Amino acid sequence: MNKYALHGKLSATAGNGEKLASILLEASQLVSTAKGCHLYLISKDPKDAESVWVTEVWDSQEDHDCSLLVPGVRELISQAMPLLAGKPEKGQVLEVLGGAGI
Amino acid sequence: MNKYALHGKLSATAGNGEKLASILLEASQLVSTAKGCHLYLISKDPKDAESVWVTEVWDSQEDHDCSLLVPGVRELISQAMPLLAGKPEKGQVLEVLGGAGI
Repeated sequence: MNKYALHGKLSATAGNGEKLASILLEASQLVSTAKGCHLYLISKDPKDAESVWVTEVWDSQEDHDCSLLVPGVRELISQAMPLLAGKPEKGQVLEVLGGAGI
Repeated sequence: MNKYALHGKLSATAGNGEKLASILLEASQLVSTAKGCHLYLISKDPKDAESVWVTEVWDSQEDHDCSLLVPGVRELISQAMPLLAGKPEKGQVLEVLGGAGI
């Protein structure tokens, strides 16, 4: 299989976790139409109300990188940026060997 | 959506990462037939040859817990156990809010 996976956290400023999650849920609907996107999940950590986790699987890193060009994505990023507590960290990069569900 | 996700690492003793991955890939085929399983991915960290990551999404924690009862799973666990470097740590638990691909 050998796909490109990213698993990372975005942290919002106090009180903005839910708003950030809602923007990312909207983004997931756009981004998932991009070439090579197999998975784009938005999750929360039950113990951390202001953080949102994004778990992505793509055919390649290149496909992931191109997803920023999907119409509407940049607008959502610019809505999300002022909610963030600091710069987003680079997520964990994994190579998917196989499994089930994508 | 609100599903139960687990993201965790199993580390093999030196030289056994590939064998562990192959057992987990076999397990993913069995486990993914269980009730409530949406995702069961086996990945590796390009920087850590002896570790294997498992990323799961289930309808509920209960469905996840029941997956150990799928025929054949216990046998695969007993094949994997001697390959592990120490006890498996509990993975990261997340609540999937939504997204795309499952």
